[in-house]
Amino acid sequence: MTMERVLLAVLASAFALTFAGPAAAQTDGPLPSWIDGKAKRSVIEFVSRVTREDSPDFVPPAERIATFDNDGTLWTEHPMYTQLAFALDRVKALAPEHPEWKSAQPFKAALDSDLAALAAAGEKGLVELVMATHAGMSTAEFEAVVTEWLAKARHPRFKRPYTELTYKPMVELLEYLRANGFKTYIVSGGGVEFMRPMTQAVYGVPPEQVIGSSIKTQYQIKDGKPELIRLPEIDFIDDKAGKPVGINTFIGRRPIAAFGNSAGDREMLDWTGAGAGARLMMLVLHDDAEREYAYGPANGLPDTKFGTFPPSLMEEAKQKGWGVTSMKNDWKRVFAFEK
Amino acid sequence: MTMERVLLAVLASAFALTFAGPAAAQTDGPLPSWIDGKAKRSVIEFVSRVTREDSPDFVPPAERIATFDNDGTLWTEHPMYTQLAFALDRVKALAPEHPEWKSAQPFKAALDSDLAALAAAGEKGLVELVMATHAGMSTAEFEAVVTEWLAKARHPRFKRPYTELTYKPMVELLEYLRANGFKTYIVSGGGVEFMRPMTQAVYGVPPEQVIGSSIKTQYQIKDGKPELIRLPEIDFIDDKAGKPVGINTFIGRRPIAAFGNSAGDREMLDWTGAGAGARLMMLVLHDDAEREYAYGPANGLPDTKFGTFPPSLMEEAKQKGWGVTSMKNDWKRVFAFEK
Repeated sequence: MTMERVLLAVLASAFALTFAGPAAAQTDGPLPSWIDGKAKRSVIEFVSRVTREDSPDFVPPAERIATFDNDGTLWTEHPMYTQLAFALDRVKALAPEHPEWKSAQPFKAALDSDLAALAAAGEKGLVELVMATHAGMSTAEFEAVVTEWLAKARHPRFKRPYTELTYKPMVELLEYLRANGFKTYIVSGGGVEFMRPMTQAVYGVPPEQVIGSSIKTQYQIKDGKPELIRLPEIDFIDDKAGKPVGINTFIGRRPIAAFGNSAGDREMLDWTGAGAGARLMMLVLHDDAEREYAYGPANGLPDTKFGTFPPSLMEEAKQKGWGVTSMKNDWKRVFAFEK
Repeated sequence: MTMERVLLAVLASAFALTFAGPAAAQTDGPLPSWIDGKAKRSVIEFVSRVTREDSPDFVPPAERIATFDNDGTLWTEHPMYTQLAFALDRVKALAPEHPEWKSAQPFKAALDSDLAALAAAGEKGLVELVMATHAGMSTAEFEAVVTEWLAKARHPRFKRPYTELTYKPMVELLEYLRANGFKTYIVSGGGVEFMRPMTQAVYGVPPEQVIGSSIKTQYQIKDGKPELIRLPEIDFIDDKAGKPVGINTFIGRRPIAAFGNSAGDREMLDWTGAGAGARLMMLVLHDDAEREYAYGPANGLPDTKFGTFPPSLMEEAKQKGWGVTSMKNDWKRVFAFEK
């Protein structure tokens, strides 16, 4: 090869690196809060495979759908789901109008912040709490209540608004995927109208890209103005097998990437993985008691009922090639407020 | 004014026209298939009001949501809804496996293409037909059936694929709104999985921006692969008061523009109009028997049950300032195939 050809080849390869590589959302390279290990490399490699036009695995931008669980995947779910903390605060705020709650479960447990009694009330108790605190008002009124609560409420351990307890590496991942033409969706067991007031500001995810559990609403005219009233009736539970159902109903396309952290995300990851072409499925493992929390049997730790990560899920991840990102070993920092 | 100031003023105003006016999706000006009348002007004026940054009615791009009914608003719904034509063809295709259909309604009516008997079977009969023809298979199988049918089926009068019976002025309107930063949604009483296979190609609307009626689906594993099975059970009817409910569930924002053609769209237009700031609500009036169809009492014509446009809706449009676009008087051509 002549010197001229060598120079041309070097220039061409530099050009290819500059223009054909995945776009970084940050100026100091993509995913700056991720440690440069297997998890980070697998994300960048996947994005490169599906975005390089000369790649056999190239995916057109319209089909670059990525879905993210919320609780425990994008923000902290301990010591309880943020939405449960909201429901308990709502029970306390509404208690003066409901003297009967002082002696009736699950309301008494909520008023006493008695998590053991709440757990004993089970799913039925939880549904009762949600209906008493999330229904019986218009969608606009509920949005105002949630917005006010999110501004005032503080996490018991971190003493910060819940919206600051989002995982910085995951927020970077959302941005990185969007910078590479992905449409990012939240697919959560949480209530869709509980999440929508904050997802744009916190995750850059607009309300129309938030899928969640819902209660029924009814259209009515009040004082000549139409409004939607939230009814005390479950409409859809976006958890476990409900996640692929919700994805199909709302998006009508199969994701090519999916991120979760518990057994509630298994079907979403399975559904994502069953499509043709390159796929990325990843679980967040809570193994960092110092910076956040460590929980779940996969950790050899007690199952706290929230964000259950059973050993069988770890086995499934290994078998199916799902990535597992360790908060402790893969993330330089967990929260944006860490310096 | 000095000559220099005059020149500067002329340049400034030319600049303003070039850069501050609504973007046209077409090189020969926006909405070329619309006659230059009140309807076209009201659309362009509205888009200018919400997109000019110096306008008191400016709306940020993220909030520029426009919703469109499908049947009778974007494509022909006569002599019957396209999806009903599909259901009748499916009954005929499946009939050999169902000898009992020869003597049982509504199936006999479907096999005989007896529209009067079908109408007599009412909504209950229609639901039975849909369940027998739209359920009992996976979502992937249903998509394949719809795609194949859309490629083969021909409209009885125009002898063309149904996908060519879309209204060219409305397709231009979709493009014009998108060129001005709008997100365009279909909000139809039709089945969401019947529409999604064609909306991107025909309207430029991706599947995740199609809201429609749906039946329930169930997640299951078959031969080790997950699939979603369509169940013979109604999930959601996206018509009348269901349209604002669907809009809230799927989008979580109120549209600033909405387009319909029948009493089924009344609540969607009302819901859209009840928001603060500039709004555009518009109804398509089918008054062109020559190029398409003329029907509905607002026309002084018999109500054919499809796309009902009662006189009360015309009254409401006048009272509430909703635009009414006449196919006959406002559109240069109805279909793209007209020369």
